[in-house]
Amino acid sequence: MKALVYQGPGKMALEDRPTPEIAAPTDAIVRILKTTICGTDLHILKGDVPTCAPGRILGHEGVGVVETVGPAVTAFHPGDHVIVSCISSCGKCDYCRRGMYSHCVNGGWILGNTVDGTQAEFVRTPFADTSLYHVPAGADEEALVMLSDILPTGFECGVLNGKVQPGATVAIVGSGPIGLAALLTAQFYSPAEIIMIDFDDNRLQIAARFGATTTINATDGKAVETVMAMTGGRGVDTAIEAVGVPASFLTCQDIVAPGGVIANIGVHGVKADLHLERLWDRNITITTRLVDTVTTPMLLKTVQSHKVDPQRLITHRFKLADILDAYDTFGRAAATNALKVVIEA
Amino acid sequence: MKALVYQGPGKMALEDRPTPEIAAPTDAIVRILKTTICGTDLHILKGDVPTCAPGRILGHEGVGVVETVGPAVTAFHPGDHVIVSCISSCGKCDYCRRGMYSHCVNGGWILGNTVDGTQAEFVRTPFADTSLYHVPAGADEEALVMLSDILPTGFECGVLNGKVQPGATVAIVGSGPIGLAALLTAQFYSPAEIIMIDFDDNRLQIAARFGATTTINATDGKAVETVMAMTGGRGVDTAIEAVGVPASFLTCQDIVAPGGVIANIGVHGVKADLHLERLWDRNITITTRLVDTVTTPMLLKTVQSHKVDPQRLITHRFKLADILDAYDTFGRAAATNALKVVIEA
Amino acid sequence: MKALVYQGPGKMALEDRPTPEIAAPTDAIVRILKTTICGTDLHILKGDVPTCAPGRILGHEGVGVVETVGPAVTAFHPGDHVIVSCISSCGKCDYCRRGMYSHCVNGGWILGNTVDGTQAEFVRTPFADTSLYHVPAGADEEALVMLSDILPTGFECGVLNGKVQPGATVAIVGSGPIGLAALLTAQFYSPAEIIMIDFDDNRLQIAARFGATTTINATDGKAVETVMAMTGGRGVDTAIEAVGVPASFLTCQDIVAPGGVIANIGVHGVKADLHLERLWDRNITITTRLVDTVTTPMLLKTVQSHKVDPQRLITHRFKLADILDAYDTFGRAAATNALKVVIEA
Amino acid sequence: MKALVYQGPGKMALEDRPTPEIAAPTDAIVRILKTTICGTDLHILKGDVPTCAPGRILGHEGVGVVETVGPAVTAFHPGDHVIVSCISSCGKCDYCRRGMYSHCVNGGWILGNTVDGTQAEFVRTPFADTSLYHVPAGADEEALVMLSDILPTGFECGVLNGKVQPGATVAIVGSGPIGLAALLTAQFYSPAEIIMIDFDDNRLQIAARFGATTTINATDGKAVETVMAMTGGRGVDTAIEAVGVPASFLTCQDIVAPGGVIANIGVHGVKADLHLERLWDRNITITTRLVDTVTTPMLLKTVQSHKVDPQRLITHRFKLADILDAYDTFGRAAATNALKVVIEA
Repeated sequence: MKALVYQGPGKMALEDRPTPEIAAPTDAIVRILKTTICGTDLHILKGDVPTCAPGRILGHEGVGVVETVGPAVTAFHPGDHVIVSCISSCGKCDYCRRGMYSHCVNGGWILGNTVDGTQAEFVRTPFADTSLYHVPAGADEEALVMLSDILPTGFECGVLNGKVQPGATVAIVGSGPIGLAALLTAQFYSPAEIIMIDFDDNRLQIAARFGATTTINATDGKAVETVMAMTGGRGVDTAIEAVGVPASFLTCQDIVAPGGVIANIGVHGVKADLHLERLWDRNITITTRLVDTVTTPMLLKTVQSHKVDPQRLITHRFKLADILDAYDTFGRAAATNALKVVIEA
Repeated sequence: MKALVYQGPGKMALEDRPTPEIAAPTDAIVRILKTTICGTDLHILKGDVPTCAPGRILGHEGVGVVETVGPAVTAFHPGDHVIVSCISSCGKCDYCRRGMYSHCVNGGWILGNTVDGTQAEFVRTPFADTSLYHVPAGADEEALVMLSDILPTGFECGVLNGKVQPGATVAIVGSGPIGLAALLTAQFYSPAEIIMIDFDDNRLQIAARFGATTTINATDGKAVETVMAMTGGRGVDTAIEAVGVPASFLTCQDIVAPGGVIANIGVHGVKADLHLERLWDRNITITTRLVDTVTTPMLLKTVQSHKVDPQRLITHRFKLADILDAYDTFGRAAATNALKVVIEA
Repeated sequence: MKALVYQGPGKMALEDRPTPEIAAPTDAIVRILKTTICGTDLHILKGDVPTCAPGRILGHEGVGVVETVGPAVTAFHPGDHVIVSCISSCGKCDYCRRGMYSHCVNGGWILGNTVDGTQAEFVRTPFADTSLYHVPAGADEEALVMLSDILPTGFECGVLNGKVQPGATVAIVGSGPIGLAALLTAQFYSPAEIIMIDFDDNRLQIAARFGATTTINATDGKAVETVMAMTGGRGVDTAIEAVGVPASFLTCQDIVAPGGVIANIGVHGVKADLHLERLWDRNITITTRLVDTVTTPMLLKTVQSHKVDPQRLITHRFKLADILDAYDTFGRAAATNALKVVIEA
Repeated sequence: MKALVYQGPGKMALEDRPTPEIAAPTDAIVRILKTTICGTDLHILKGDVPTCAPGRILGHEGVGVVETVGPAVTAFHPGDHVIVSCISSCGKCDYCRRGMYSHCVNGGWILGNTVDGTQAEFVRTPFADTSLYHVPAGADEEALVMLSDILPTGFECGVLNGKVQPGATVAIVGSGPIGLAALLTAQFYSPAEIIMIDFDDNRLQIAARFGATTTINATDGKAVETVMAMTGGRGVDTAIEAVGVPASFLTCQDIVAPGGVIANIGVHGVKADLHLERLWDRNITITTRLVDTVTTPMLLKTVQSHKVDPQRLITHRFKLADILDAYDTFGRAAATNALKVVIEA
């Protein structure tokens, strides 16, 4: 089969690989219909993810059709259309039993990392019964690719951890795909204000279309000042960090109100300053999280009932044969205005 | 009346001052029976608290007798024995209505800071109806001095924010009075393990007597290693920071388990490093809080029903005439083994 | 001044009464701009509310202008436009401090019950600082009359207690004004389905316009069957009782899913059967609540940010001189299709 | 092997049965070391549990040694000492993923009900990986038999659902084994008062030894009056129903304070009156629950750290050969003072 293979820092190729086979009784083999590229895939390509060795088929998102299942798989059958979760959950370990699938001692984020992933014609998915989700009849399968990772990530790490409430004021620092996923799902809770902060006017325009009530281009260095003026000097109830650099995390510290929450989504490569000398008495909460995908069933219901349309995150479409173009488009997002690119396998 | 007055950095004296009078209809005048000294008073003396101007009577803790009340005070009457809360709460503002009295826009921590405090024969307490608490009949009034500040601080900022649960593993970094208050009140929730970390063997011995299941002297630099070994490499469910310096906050980051909480109690003077490059995907929560004293009624019930004995925090007793000695004893805690010193007015 | 006075079961009249005066330092006198009639007022007229004695001015809802304030009132000033909450909260008692204003030991629901109410040109409002809310500049004051009682009642007793969640299935039994208020505010949380059950097609049509995804006329006795068929035999996550009779409470028991919530809003006059022989092992929760109005600030923000339009509940408008006509129209709602009637004072 | 078999209403016998074998890849065969009898077993014998057909081996509690495991079992191996949970959880279905194992669509309470149970020399346990728990090294295995059912039932259905808090006032109606299990585990949360209500002085004496602060013999019909007097007319924060008849559920309604919780544990055979005409405005919560055993890992930690000693619930011990005597002793508890009887297999 065709598969996109990581060949070491800066190198990848579409290779011919053997079709995967059932290796454990809880496995399924899924024929990929559609997959996509994540910012994390770009991190791997830069060599920033040491757990991912050269030779690995990339990709941890996708929608497909079950081809075969192992003997212990009971909830899925050949022919079933499924969403492949970015997190593989054994369903048995202490973390899985507590709903923290991201830290599953037998799984977690392994697809396209420590086992071969979804940017291929077929993928072997471990712990199929607890890591795949049925595509509802009549669903828009392309939209559901967004449920593998980006929508639950924005929702769980940003919105749920950020305790977004009706009437609240929310700021999202970073209007890339993940910040926009947080923006879309924050609206489940009817906050009064959603302030989007970024350096890119195009992304801010998208944010405004997606429901941001205010957009702030931070280029002039006055974003904090603007937010504080808008909130009468009080700050925001929820500040969602959706970039992953110290500066944006600092912005969150500068704008969070007493009693508020900073919900970190960003993948950070270096430490950040935490201004405890200002924050120790502010009654704030800071959260971090790798997506657990524990809300996938809930999100499916919101998509099916049209409370959110994840399709809006998709800007480009490619065939698997052109996946290198897809990487190029996604990797030059500032120039291409790409958000999520869908690859048809 | 006699009162301990801050005279500028490094200076204080027991002065003669006029007895305070009702200034607002919600005030009460309380004759102090017993007061105490807080670490914050030492901070003021160092000149670290700019809101506290020279000439201020210090002290924000105490038990006393209501002498007179303003015309709008309905819940207290002359002769009532009361606990003076360290936080003055107007009961009306948005923060007070949300239970965040620490950020009361009309009060907050003002006693012994921006208005005259309790280290005196009498004190004027603003917002008496919502800032004083009735001493139950037959209560040990000396023990209840601990309810003005230290017990709710340890409980709210450390234990409640830290989400201590039955069977959980808790570490408290810092075995001073506030860490010990967290230790005493953490036991309300029956954690399986409470690990106390400090540099002072005397304080660790006290912690062991107060219920710590493990004590670790961190002098050898191996505290983190020890905690991780004890927990099978997993870390602790709750790490309570009770010192207020970057190193202890770092220890908390090093020992918190995935899904765990770092609850900061310490008063920090400088920023700290937050290792988001290690923590972004660990599903942790960090909290800060100035005590709200919203749990004072609950704590009163736990004291009256002998679930906790705050008296154990009291190591020394002085007369108001000797309050400079009390400061000396409290200020040289490492040498005197002082925890809380009670001053009889 | 003119005032609508309860004169004993079945009797009321628009009388001339002295303008109220400040009686306690925490009082305000409010000149009523607009008020409305509540189902509870009809209960009083039937003689069902023994705490309300003949001679009482009725009404516990309204928007007005502060005329004078007592000496302890600090948050409101003459000329301020205010919402009068149906619940008077002293802000000091144990219940108020816990956010349970409905059980305030000094207040609670007293307006138009044990003290004179708002269906008059002026009203004396006790505990003004903690029972009035500022009308935001530019707000639609007529719409804000709905914030005195009906919107917080539907929201707190139905939606918050019912733990409505994104993607969830909600049923509301009773499509009268209070059921519709629950319907409007349930949408803050983006449930997938809101099923409205009533016997009146007109009210169900309104429900459909207000956002119900399914409406069921229960006249044929098949409402339970229909709900269970719609939910694959599982039942609903939240069942909101908005009638106040045993039959509707029974319907809720019949349709609640395992793990679900029955949130009672209805005012019940008699006991109901609770089928514990079927429910003891179903992991359900049943809640009751008199509105606390603790969410009034949150609701104000949702109205100001257009997340909900409470104006939609208003069907008729009258002058105070014609308040008996207003009662007639409201009392014959089935015939007049009245929801809320606004009376201009 | 020897097994206690239900033979229809009123009939049971110790029979010879074939040793069970692995039937599904997720099964384990466990050699029973110790088991016990539950009140539910008596219900079955009365013919009150229609799902349990004659010929069924009874018992859903026990500690044993894994004999063999199916090919999909990964967490347990022959020779492992295990607690058998009364609830079989597939770990995959929607209910299991939400922690509501009691409603597992593939399992739930099936042992000794719809599949053969633990009152035998061997038992086949379905979904072994998610329904068995490792016995910690050095643990008191007899005490851990209490973790199969009674301790998690008292804790989850009574204490957790009842939201027991430090300083709170709790009443438990029914001082049988399950009420006593609630009493033991309520103390994890340090309530100020635990009031035990029963008709049997012996059981109340045990309750006093187990930590009840007040015991009330309800024979004189004055239990409600006594509780209300003790609580200044306010009532209790948590009322735990641990009998399962309308009268005890009514007592709970009569003593619950505004804002309080009634947590039902009892197995009810008939409906009860719910006095909504008194309770609709009292802001109370009523919960029902079949134990999920989701807290078994937490409870294991509390037992291992000596926060609770479930051994105290055991009053009698028998050999499997004498299990009919064990049933007789347990069935005549009023005469024998039996709480839990342990049967050694």
